[in-house]
Amino acid sequence: MPGAGDDTGLLSPVRAGTAAEAATGDRAWLAALLDAEAALTRAQAVLGLAPEEAARAVDRAVRESAFDVRDLALRARSGGNPVIPLVRELTAAVRKTAPDAAAHVHRGATSQDILDTATMLVAARTLPLILADLERTIDALGRLADRHRATPMPGRTLTQHAVPTTFGLKAAGWRSLLLDAHDRLAALLDGGLPVQLGGAAGTLAAFGAYARPDDGTELAGTGADTGETGGAGPGTRIAAQYARELGLAEPGLPWHTLRTPVADLAAGLAFTTGALGKLAADVLVLSRTEIGEVAEGTGGGSSAMPHKANPARAVLIASAARQVPALAAVLLGSLAAEDERPGSAWHAEWQPLREALRLTGGAAEAAAGLAGGLRVRPERMRANLDLTGGLVVSERLTAELAPLLGREEAAGLLGDAARRAAERGTGLREALREEPAVREALSEERLRELTDPTGYTGEAAVLTARALRRAPRRFPAGPSSPPSASSPEGRA
Amino acid sequence: MPGAGDDTGLLSPVRAGTAAEAATGDRAWLAALLDAEAALTRAQAVLGLAPEEAARAVDRAVRESAFDVRDLALRARSGGNPVIPLVRELTAAVRKTAPDAAAHVHRGATSQDILDTATMLVAARTLPLILADLERTIDALGRLADRHRATPMPGRTLTQHAVPTTFGLKAAGWRSLLLDAHDRLAALLDGGLPVQLGGAAGTLAAFGAYARPDDGTELAGTGADTGETGGAGPGTRIAAQYARELGLAEPGLPWHTLRTPVADLAAGLAFTTGALGKLAADVLVLSRTEIGEVAEGTGGGSSAMPHKANPARAVLIASAARQVPALAAVLLGSLAAEDERPGSAWHAEWQPLREALRLTGGAAEAAAGLAGGLRVRPERMRANLDLTGGLVVSERLTAELAPLLGREEAAGLLGDAARRAAERGTGLREALREEPAVREALSEERLRELTDPTGYTGEAAVLTARALRRAPRRFPAGPSSPPSASSPEGRA
Amino acid sequence: MPGAGDDTGLLSPVRAGTAAEAATGDRAWLAALLDAEAALTRAQAVLGLAPEEAARAVDRAVRESAFDVRDLALRARSGGNPVIPLVRELTAAVRKTAPDAAAHVHRGATSQDILDTATMLVAARTLPLILADLERTIDALGRLADRHRATPMPGRTLTQHAVPTTFGLKAAGWRSLLLDAHDRLAALLDGGLPVQLGGAAGTLAAFGAYARPDDGTELAGTGADTGETGGAGPGTRIAAQYARELGLAEPGLPWHTLRTPVADLAAGLAFTTGALGKLAADVLVLSRTEIGEVAEGTGGGSSAMPHKANPARAVLIASAARQVPALAAVLLGSLAAEDERPGSAWHAEWQPLREALRLTGGAAEAAAGLAGGLRVRPERMRANLDLTGGLVVSERLTAELAPLLGREEAAGLLGDAARRAAERGTGLREALREEPAVREALSEERLRELTDPTGYTGEAAVLTARALRRAPRRFPAGPSSPPSASSPEGRA
Amino acid sequence: MPGAGDDTGLLSPVRAGTAAEAATGDRAWLAALLDAEAALTRAQAVLGLAPEEAARAVDRAVRESAFDVRDLALRARSGGNPVIPLVRELTAAVRKTAPDAAAHVHRGATSQDILDTATMLVAARTLPLILADLERTIDALGRLADRHRATPMPGRTLTQHAVPTTFGLKAAGWRSLLLDAHDRLAALLDGGLPVQLGGAAGTLAAFGAYARPDDGTELAGTGADTGETGGAGPGTRIAAQYARELGLAEPGLPWHTLRTPVADLAAGLAFTTGALGKLAADVLVLSRTEIGEVAEGTGGGSSAMPHKANPARAVLIASAARQVPALAAVLLGSLAAEDERPGSAWHAEWQPLREALRLTGGAAEAAAGLAGGLRVRPERMRANLDLTGGLVVSERLTAELAPLLGREEAAGLLGDAARRAAERGTGLREALREEPAVREALSEERLRELTDPTGYTGEAAVLTARALRRAPRRFPAGPSSPPSASSPEGRA
Repeated sequence: MPGAGDDTGLLSPVRAGTAAEAATGDRAWLAALLDAEAALTRAQAVLGLAPEEAARAVDRAVRESAFDVRDLALRARSGGNPVIPLVRELTAAVRKTAPDAAAHVHRGATSQDILDTATMLVAARTLPLILADLERTIDALGRLADRHRATPMPGRTLTQHAVPTTFGLKAAGWRSLLLDAHDRLAALLDGGLPVQLGGAAGTLAAFGAYARPDDGTELAGTGADTGETGGAGPGTRIAAQYARELGLAEPGLPWHTLRTPVADLAAGLAFTTGALGKLAADVLVLSRTEIGEVAEGTGGGSSAMPHKANPARAVLIASAARQVPALAAVLLGSLAAEDERPGSAWHAEWQPLREALRLTGGAAEAAAGLAGGLRVRPERMRANLDLTGGLVVSERLTAELAPLLGREEAAGLLGDAARRAAERGTGLREALREEPAVREALSEERLRELTDPTGYTGEAAVLTARALRRAPRRFPAGPSSPPSASSPEGRA
Repeated sequence: MPGAGDDTGLLSPVRAGTAAEAATGDRAWLAALLDAEAALTRAQAVLGLAPEEAARAVDRAVRESAFDVRDLALRARSGGNPVIPLVRELTAAVRKTAPDAAAHVHRGATSQDILDTATMLVAARTLPLILADLERTIDALGRLADRHRATPMPGRTLTQHAVPTTFGLKAAGWRSLLLDAHDRLAALLDGGLPVQLGGAAGTLAAFGAYARPDDGTELAGTGADTGETGGAGPGTRIAAQYARELGLAEPGLPWHTLRTPVADLAAGLAFTTGALGKLAADVLVLSRTEIGEVAEGTGGGSSAMPHKANPARAVLIASAARQVPALAAVLLGSLAAEDERPGSAWHAEWQPLREALRLTGGAAEAAAGLAGGLRVRPERMRANLDLTGGLVVSERLTAELAPLLGREEAAGLLGDAARRAAERGTGLREALREEPAVREALSEERLRELTDPTGYTGEAAVLTARALRRAPRRFPAGPSSPPSASSPEGRA
Repeated sequence: MPGAGDDTGLLSPVRAGTAAEAATGDRAWLAALLDAEAALTRAQAVLGLAPEEAARAVDRAVRESAFDVRDLALRARSGGNPVIPLVRELTAAVRKTAPDAAAHVHRGATSQDILDTATMLVAARTLPLILADLERTIDALGRLADRHRATPMPGRTLTQHAVPTTFGLKAAGWRSLLLDAHDRLAALLDGGLPVQLGGAAGTLAAFGAYARPDDGTELAGTGADTGETGGAGPGTRIAAQYARELGLAEPGLPWHTLRTPVADLAAGLAFTTGALGKLAADVLVLSRTEIGEVAEGTGGGSSAMPHKANPARAVLIASAARQVPALAAVLLGSLAAEDERPGSAWHAEWQPLREALRLTGGAAEAAAGLAGGLRVRPERMRANLDLTGGLVVSERLTAELAPLLGREEAAGLLGDAARRAAERGTGLREALREEPAVREALSEERLRELTDPTGYTGEAAVLTARALRRAPRRFPAGPSSPPSASSPEGRA
Repeated sequence: MPGAGDDTGLLSPVRAGTAAEAATGDRAWLAALLDAEAALTRAQAVLGLAPEEAARAVDRAVRESAFDVRDLALRARSGGNPVIPLVRELTAAVRKTAPDAAAHVHRGATSQDILDTATMLVAARTLPLILADLERTIDALGRLADRHRATPMPGRTLTQHAVPTTFGLKAAGWRSLLLDAHDRLAALLDGGLPVQLGGAAGTLAAFGAYARPDDGTELAGTGADTGETGGAGPGTRIAAQYARELGLAEPGLPWHTLRTPVADLAAGLAFTTGALGKLAADVLVLSRTEIGEVAEGTGGGSSAMPHKANPARAVLIASAARQVPALAAVLLGSLAAEDERPGSAWHAEWQPLREALRLTGGAAEAAAGLAGGLRVRPERMRANLDLTGGLVVSERLTAELAPLLGREEAAGLLGDAARRAAERGTGLREALREEPAVREALSEERLRELTDPTGYTGEAAVLTARALRRAPRRFPAGPSSPPSASSPEGRA
């Protein structure tokens, strides 16, 4: 039974039960926090700045202890972040089996080092899930585009039929936008998301302070060289090793208040939900009862109406696309963080970033299902093309008649014919046939050809073919998903 | 142990463990959903449109059945909302003890009727908690303002000392803004938050369709009169009774896509976190190490630095104030919802509204603690007033000298003196004393009087007294918090 | 010819050329700034704290001088706000005709006093324009609702036909939401928007410092009483008179960083564009080529397609509704302003508030045109109701058949029939007729009656009638629009 | 004199008078619109699809005609965008000197082709201005970081002194974040911003329809090949030439509703103002009266207080950083645009994108001034370091004493000493000296060394040196700023 205040997904069906939700829950964050602590001690041990046994003891405590994530949440309130009580718990757990190792828990670090690093771990574990669902969606849309490259349908602008297009081009457009999203998210992982390590105020000073043997002499290589070309001190060396331990990148500087990684995630996630939102927006339009050109494979039911087949996945995706830009605005606003570590800009990032990750992940999973199961109805597209009785190709007739009749006269004549056709509910062809000037200029056959909407799809096929030649940068599975020494299953 | 994807507050310490968090968790929402279902059947029974026994059976099922909130969350995904699976569960639970009653579960309603009503119930149960914490904060600030109405401190504008003010006026200002917030939230409950009842598309038609005895004749009074002054049909009568059952208000129209109640909540909550954020912003400034004029009673600790006493509550409040306006923007954006029930604008409301409620509630609770325990340091205020060596009263000297020396000359002379004082680090009085024109115009005693910052607090005391005469509209405890037939403890 | 960087409306057609645009341009703001300066001196003269002649001189300079608004904009950059150079200009202008009066320009005030007061003046002059357009829209929608109270149309939910509704109820819903918007904006003017007067740091101290005759004695009644019940000092008395001069309200406290008036405007404007956005969203759907149930009286043309009649006004309104919530989020975020006057929260308000005012005003004007000219097509509504061959009343058949056949069997039978009807493209009635159980339970006539969508509009008529009985609070024309001593035409 | 509703910068001093403002004004947009029209005809002429003379005539009309930008703004309202009236004006202007050429104005294109292309032109002309100001800022910060790499100052976290850092590291951090911003904006120009060309619904059909000689036969190469490897049709060939004419890139697909270019601009601009906002946030803190560690070279004045030197540039930058994330949220929200061209998502982009460009540009220009003139006060930093009497190095003492006394005892002893020091206002060193355990463990000299804050800056120097080795990717001046055939001076 969840706790009284827990959010288990009831109000966010777009992500309830998805892999992204599990990857971003409190237990996943706790696992990442513990991974970060363990890696920090391990990194120091690798460099000879902590005993091997200490690193093993911390690893063991992380793997074997049961941490109560809710209790940590409650105790986070007094100090403002959950790392403070976690360090206390972890230290106690280590002390139980290795009293001497306790002093090496969290040594030299500040809470933000651990929480930021854990956040990057969570992001690095969640993004591949999103990328995989984007790839599934891209593949499915590619198949749709390929199959329907010659399927004509009405092109719609400002809600009105404009000129014909093809469903192939439409699907290729969705795919192209998702490839853009995929590129942007994959780029975040390319260089690698960075660990955070700066110590209390970003100078890494404590690592130097601790990097002294008991006799008071400096360890070789632990002093920070202040010269222009100087070698790394213990802090920077630990940071590099820490990154290796976790499969993350080493940052140029501690980024406690240089929030590029978070801002980039915000932008990438908002882009992605927006791109998925475009797909959803079109599905919502095209599956309207009156339009009926597509339908979700298995639509949502209704609690009252047996006949309804709602575009439920599109609805959920669209609901995510409405939320993530606002969350991104909070995250982008947090760039302007004062001091060496800020008093609220940082704290305001955690929950919006989590929500952005899981909403995007949920939307991507829904999109994969939607694209994979989308039912396309060429016959409805064809029927809708005829709805305006040829008006959908009036542009073409303008182009054809202008050289023959003069631009002004052609436009006037077409406008009149369009009006008459609309009033009577007959087609444009009928109305044009009544015009002596048209009858003179165009044979019946040519008129039929010109008013056939399926013959006026322009370069849709060329554009579709061109778009389908672009492939997603396949993301390497390996380093993208930093392994957890402590699986999320193992605790909380 | 929470589920893998659960949010138990780890990333949102501002609300972890608060009453507002518990009042807005999934279990609280589920309780409200069940309360709504039970009340709907009860309302029909009261009006003779369902058997009494059916209402009792639903009440019983609601009270006694164990609903798995996470399972409902998972099953919400296919249809897009959690009411669909809930109705299925509830119907099954009712059928077990009263097979005939099962047909009366959810009869005539649509999912949105239940979810919107539940949302208003949750809001109506959470707002009093927030109001109570605002009142505690207002009381504490009133005491501070009263005690410090004559405590001078630097007034700061654009980060610089401007002229003196008093801490009393500052606290009275915070209190005044929180009274504004209190007014806005209390007004939401004044008229009462509305139930939702419209049926499938807001016409209440199903209630009429079901309001027929088995012989096919119309029940008396069940037909909707279509005349201008016509009486209510079964749907409108049920809506009124439904509202009475739940302690909520009857709306003028079904508001499936007329989202005034949600938009008003959004605005009120964003206002409130903003107002609390003003308090927090000032505490963050005033507790800076260099300023030190206030400190939180029990500051947040640090994982690395034993001496630090962070303004942890102010940090948490400020973190909420950074998030809620963006959530409000999502909710205000959802006003533009198409159709009779929309495809995503509605779905995008649930989680942001929940977050806004609990962030505001958490911030209010933190503010009550902050205001109640705030340590004020008049001696630091006094010392800071002297930091500029009298420059903080240069405005007064301008006013005094202008009539004596001419405005231009007075301004020039003061500017010069200020510059000299700043350069040398001596006071303005010293610098002015060097000016023959000043020595001639003002006695030493008058100069001392004029450069005493504590003597230039203007009408701060009058304004403080005026502001303290305003009291919060005490909110009536009774109807504000609709009782739950099914306590949140009883399920999930 | 506009300046190189000027915004003359090219990118914001929703407000280009509207009254709200003119009321919120730089020249309107300048006029309001000058009105505020003139009123401040006048208020002091009325109270005997400045010579009558000074007030007349300032009034004269405000009326007769030519101020270069662009030059002021440029000079605002160095000090951060446009009042600093304006005071310099105004003082010089006054000095030309009345050298002694120059000292009384802006005396005692701070830049923010003038800019905030001017902002409230601009808002107080713009809101009545918006209210008037809302009233025009409300009236037109009332007429539509009345005329179409019995016009059936498909109710749509999650983009799908659900059950029938009426266009009357739909229009009554739009109207109801706009009445809510009207209430919220009118309430802002009810108590009156407040002047701002606090002096350098909100203590009104300078007014006391200046309120001394040349002999150094205190003027009677100029000292601020510090007692609990104390009388007003010169500053508070000037503030009250200042408010009277401008037709604005006297605030309880200076609100330099207690931004209730701005936050309330933000919420009210976002609500209003959201409400207008609902109308626009529906018009965009209903005027889709396939749906065609409404059309704008004079639709937007296309540069390429002669037949297109775009819902141009709805598009513009919807474009405003997408922008204002984000602007409101900025304004609500500015509530958390530190110190006595803040370093950026205030500066970030000006442009977003202006944009919110003019976008809302433009949207309201477009809505009045849209509602006044909307063409409604009952025949298309009727045709669309038949599109699903009766599925749109499946809810009713469920209600009818459940008591006759049992709930389970009725649902199963209807589901099957619906599927068959959808596959074959025939109506639900045909499909039901094939079921022996149905033929037995229902006469042909009753089946026809039950499957007639026009007979299943529930209580739409009652709800419409009820909604139409609500009227807008007519806003009093008088005090709502503070007169400008200096018409915007007279300068810049 | 500006028009009544014009925005000439009065309410947005951060950009008033800046190059970015001029580059984004209505006249600049009009110039870009005309450049786009001229290039479109020219591209067709180059490919033999229009007469050379037509291209020359359009160029001439664009160069020599006076277009009234305000009149276009007003006429934009009826059709929803300014291109419709512009095409009418331009056609008329062309017809005057070359009647036959008139038919070639805008031929084949839709309004959005021109407006989107113009928007990209404006962005491509504005971004280099922003990049140049970022480079100036980066250079100035590099000099500051270099000069102050050994200047100690308090590191501040959650508003409290934490441990020492250096001003060099702080400035290097600002610089690093601005390099990130520079990278992101420069990347937008790297591949080149794309032209838009799709025709009425993105199929480029009209270009094919017009690409026919008068005898009705197809021109060679004008037919679109539908095969997988098919050659380009006239539309795609025109698009490529169009891009070459304008110095922009050729997109993969028409992007009427695939809004990657706009979303990327939004993200890049929000990132940049956020990064500038970090600099401003720190300057606002560090220039506080009590802190005084930096000051703007020429601070903002005050209308009332002669002594004040406000951090005016930082205030303006921070005001921009508060606005742009919200504008970016609008733009990212517009990704979810329905159909082939949308009914409001597009229209909602124009003004927010313009504002984002000019706010970012204004902030960058202000930052260059701020960084170039920043006065740094090492002596104030040194004095502030001593404020806590050594508490600022308590972390170091913990590290030193823990091995000597045991971690627990060391922490307890330091906590006690810190408390005593804070209460008495004496230093930590004094308080520690009173502890026998400390006196025993540490010599007086070692204690002095350990409590000297200037000796505990950790690896600040190494990190600074590392950060300074990174250089901005110098942006090539050439193609970045597409030339205007029609200078903005030449019209409006």
